Amino acid sequence: MSNQVRRIGTDPRWSDIVVHQNTAYWVEVAEDPAQDPRSQIEQVFMQTDQTLATLGTDRKALIQVLIYLADLAYMPTLNELWDAWVPAGHAPVRACVQVALGKNLHIELVIQAAVTG
Amino acid sequence: MSNQVRRIGTDPRWSDIVVHQNTAYWVEVAEDPAQDPRSQIEQVFMQTDQTLATLGTDRKALIQVLIYLADLAYMPTLNELWDAWVPAGHAPVRACVQVALGKNLHIELVIQAAVTG
Amino acid sequence: MSNQVRRIGTDPRWSDIVVHQNTAYWVEVAEDPAQDPRSQIEQVFMQTDQTLATLGTDRKALIQVLIYLADLAYMPTLNELWDAWVPAGHAPVRACVQVALGKNLHIELVIQAAVTG
Repeated sequence: MSNQVRRIGTDPRWSDIVVHQNTAYWVEVAEDPAQDPRSQIEQVFMQTDQTLATLGTDRKALIQVLIYLADLAYMPTLNELWDAWVPAGHAPVRACVQVALGKNLHIELVIQAAVTG
Repeated sequence: MSNQVRRIGTDPRWSDIVVHQNTAYWVEVAEDPAQDPRSQIEQVFMQTDQTLATLGTDRKALIQVLIYLADLAYMPTLNELWDAWVPAGHAPVRACVQVALGKNLHIELVIQAAVTG
Repeated sequence: MSNQVRRIGTDPRWSDIVVHQNTAYWVEVAEDPAQDPRSQIEQVFMQTDQTLATLGTDRKALIQVLIYLADLAYMPTLNELWDAWVPAGHAPVRACVQVALGKNLHIELVIQAAVTG
């Protein structure tokens, strides 16, 4: 384990992922924000799977997921899709609150996961 | 120190606590959300004490507490109870913002604390 | 690397910075909240530079910045100042949401950065 910071997908505004002390940090918003809440929730979970694959791991590595919803009315849909997505015996810590999000976004995830390196 | 992720109180939706790299992550909401804001604040602090005890440590191990309030009007009550609860010389980093919380919740805490293992 | 928690600027309510496992945690709000949004954004970035200097490092050490805005209408100003402030090739992970903040605050940052010790 090194004290190096590793950045993946770095552009002038943000990095897609930052890894430090065997912990990966990242944020997910729907790549297609023109879609409805259910689709955006499905998108961010699918994108999270892709990010985890990029890191060489999977959903079982999730430590914490902070969920920002644009409307708590999406909670039943979120829970339905979340419960089907979270691997049995490996659920992360989760918080879920309603805030105002950037244009057209219905959901935003702030994620930490265990990785190597 | 291992790179293992340790999960405590894991159900299909979330874990009560996740430990990784000597850091514990968890979320507290009042176990009895039928109570008023003051009671819920008291509850989450008492529950945090219990979580810290489960981890074999105490309030002095707190690193960061993100406080979500359903109404910033609770801030004076929060600060009164918080100041009496935080151990002198060991205060964590704290942020406090107002968001909309799930049904009947007046406060939600997102916590990180130092632990061994 | 030790498992010690190091606290800097600890008063009865909070610490300015907590360091654990080579990671520094802190929160920035404008020291002069009487100023307008642009000034407060400039202030929190300048204060972040000062905090990083206190830690013996600089902007390249930023891991994650969670940005709370009192109004998403400040986003263009935030992005203009942010893009000029973030060092090329070292952008952190970033989330930005609108919440209600304490009296007169227009912006609040929750930050994690890589440090030694």
